[in-house]
Amino acid sequence: MSNREHEETKDSSILKKPLSRRDLLRLAGTGGLGLIIGGAGIGGLFAAKERKTAAAVAGQPDAGDCIPFYGKHQAGIITPSQNFIYFAAFDVTTTDAKELKKLLQAWTAAAAAMTEGSMLGEESANHNLPPVDTGESAGLSPSRLTLTFGAGPSLFDSRFGLASKRPANFSDLPAFNGDQLDARWCGGDLAVQACADDLQVAFHAIRNLARIARGKAVLRWTQEGFQRTGSADPAGGTPRNLLGFKDGTANPDTTSSEQMNRVVWAGAEGGAAWMAGGSYMAVRRIRMRIEVWDRSSLKDQEETFGRYRASGAPLGGQHEFDKVDLSAKGPDGSPAIPANSHMALARGDGSVQILRRSYSYSGGIDAKTGQLDAGLLFICFQRDLQKQFIPLQQKLAKSDRLNEYIQHVGSAVFACFPGASSGGYIGETLL
Amino acid sequence: MSNREHEETKDSSILKKPLSRRDLLRLAGTGGLGLIIGGAGIGGLFAAKERKTAAAVAGQPDAGDCIPFYGKHQAGIITPSQNFIYFAAFDVTTTDAKELKKLLQAWTAAAAAMTEGSMLGEESANHNLPPVDTGESAGLSPSRLTLTFGAGPSLFDSRFGLASKRPANFSDLPAFNGDQLDARWCGGDLAVQACADDLQVAFHAIRNLARIARGKAVLRWTQEGFQRTGSADPAGGTPRNLLGFKDGTANPDTTSSEQMNRVVWAGAEGGAAWMAGGSYMAVRRIRMRIEVWDRSSLKDQEETFGRYRASGAPLGGQHEFDKVDLSAKGPDGSPAIPANSHMALARGDGSVQILRRSYSYSGGIDAKTGQLDAGLLFICFQRDLQKQFIPLQQKLAKSDRLNEYIQHVGSAVFACFPGASSGGYIGETLL
Repeated sequence: MSNREHEETKDSSILKKPLSRRDLLRLAGTGGLGLIIGGAGIGGLFAAKERKTAAAVAGQPDAGDCIPFYGKHQAGIITPSQNFIYFAAFDVTTTDAKELKKLLQAWTAAAAAMTEGSMLGEESANHNLPPVDTGESAGLSPSRLTLTFGAGPSLFDSRFGLASKRPANFSDLPAFNGDQLDARWCGGDLAVQACADDLQVAFHAIRNLARIARGKAVLRWTQEGFQRTGSADPAGGTPRNLLGFKDGTANPDTTSSEQMNRVVWAGAEGGAAWMAGGSYMAVRRIRMRIEVWDRSSLKDQEETFGRYRASGAPLGGQHEFDKVDLSAKGPDGSPAIPANSHMALARGDGSVQILRRSYSYSGGIDAKTGQLDAGLLFICFQRDLQKQFIPLQQKLAKSDRLNEYIQHVGSAVFACFPGASSGGYIGETLL
Repeated sequence: MSNREHEETKDSSILKKPLSRRDLLRLAGTGGLGLIIGGAGIGGLFAAKERKTAAAVAGQPDAGDCIPFYGKHQAGIITPSQNFIYFAAFDVTTTDAKELKKLLQAWTAAAAAMTEGSMLGEESANHNLPPVDTGESAGLSPSRLTLTFGAGPSLFDSRFGLASKRPANFSDLPAFNGDQLDARWCGGDLAVQACADDLQVAFHAIRNLARIARGKAVLRWTQEGFQRTGSADPAGGTPRNLLGFKDGTANPDTTSSEQMNRVVWAGAEGGAAWMAGGSYMAVRRIRMRIEVWDRSSLKDQEETFGRYRASGAPLGGQHEFDKVDLSAKGPDGSPAIPANSHMALARGDGSVQILRRSYSYSGGIDAKTGQLDAGLLFICFQRDLQKQFIPLQQKLAKSDRLNEYIQHVGSAVFACFPGASSGGYIGETLL
């Protein structure tokens, strides 16, 4: 775009000619978005064919790693886990519901562009203004970036007139036995889960969404996380957590719409029709007492999880996905899988399921212990926290043998909106 | 290994039969190493052909991504940058020079194994003991893991009788103008730089080295870092830092032994013949004031670096690797590349070079500002800090236009040992 074109966006002629997606994104980035969004919403201004993916640019990386942003459900929930997460919780600072709506519209536009690998704005724009895009992902592929947005219980307080829309089954988590929560990693009015196969791409997304939010919302807490990368494990086995055990073996089948409808996708529970097609997210920052764990015997470790470390098979079994029989006895007549093992408790009678989507984290040294501050950014999705995560965690918090080795230090829940279609925006069913 | 074999390692018969590499690694992990290492050193017990790489195991990932550990120089210095770093500084807690030697021997053995993708110890060992390997990288490829070891100036104090071996040109860095150092990210008796294309692999390496060090050394500080991954940028262009600019364009050519001998590999400077073939490392944790940067114009940003953001070309030029002409004038007669730009100062007359090997970092929210705590883990290697990094940084600290946007909050220097050959150990020329 030439400087002359750019100048036009600063005067009233902007309202007289069609806006390009880049125009909008530039304005979103510079805070000018509120000036030009009418009743039609942002999405309506973007036809899918206008979108320029990285693949369309000669010499750019293949964009086969682009995960569509628009759809019935938000991406990043049943999407196969990417290698990295950049999780961010925000506090809304405006008290104007209209501004909140504009924020979600601007975030939607930016998210749709970034998940396609497009830069926000244009590098060759007026050099006397700050660039719209911070630039650190320029030239990188979309890297399967997904951006998943949710609302915390606090968004339904008196500020935005949303109190009556709070789902009856959605509120802050109850205190669990053993919780050692630190406000540094708790709560938030809004959440954005950025997942990508490239950490720089995920960082870029959160940074630019935080920038777009300026004057409307501020970062409350963030947490980066990782898994083994796909290139290190081309066969794509179940990832191991930092205790060395496979984590997620018992997940429901994300390719089964029956299972996803039963376990993950909300209907109108709690009187919240606006959440139909969304999902409730629980986030727990779980520090691992790595030093203590590393001094325990392999037998103790395996009895703690209820699985063999090497294979991931249930104790007494042979293979990771062997059928679990909690009534099976070991050679000495006691249960092969201890009743207080993590698996036995998490599994129970199999009637309560959640979709785990966790990442490991590591962040320097714990000042108190001198040990690595590392653990699990536990994330799960479900259609009803009251019937799924909460009773499950109550049981685990009370009896799980794993509790000796972990501390829950952060906690939050979010109602992740249903998806938006091109022309709409994330959160429109609520606002 | 059967339990019976394992039992043998616990009685005196261990001294009567040849030790396998796995025996040694197991003992290293359980703290028993001191019992069995005689004058020959660990390395001599390992023939290269004994090593089992991931490639040798059917169904395992290709180990084409294994970077040899042994060699004239340590890997991880002129090795093309991997995607991730896990940097760790240690304080030595023993005051016994023999224990320090045993630590470096045990680290060498473990490092050689881990860079090949081998697990330490054996999963099927006695289940009543803690596993030797913490397991989270089981099944993963070596992921180009390199482990690079160095000694800080404090190692040459009175504890280990090494004072006379301190190179005369190697001491703590002088204070630089504008330094805002925090003890949380400074110093260390020993450093380990773990770089890999998989963060979990790098984490695993540092965690297990810390575990092996138990009773001899403790972690002092750590910092994770990242670059764009190779898969997001298959063409492998110069990575961008979190200010959006390409970083490392002016690096010397690591494939040129003439340049590496001139710039990177130490000789016997400062009277330290033991450092011949090693390299001096400077580490600076540089926080970026991202919010301030993001409000500055593209013109300001480009004049700050002296390069165009999009192309990386020097101002006035067309392409990233265009010859830099600091005397060139712009249209208005002033220098095209401002004299106080980062590039102009860092380049100077071109006579002083360093090998940059930096990574971006990001770690939650800065408690004071509420902004993302993110920046650059600047790392460079050179043959003489006094003649290379120190004068360069003095010049930058005084005048660099970039100082408005950055704060140096962490600092350390390390004398990275020459490489070891199979049969020797890292640090043997010093100890």
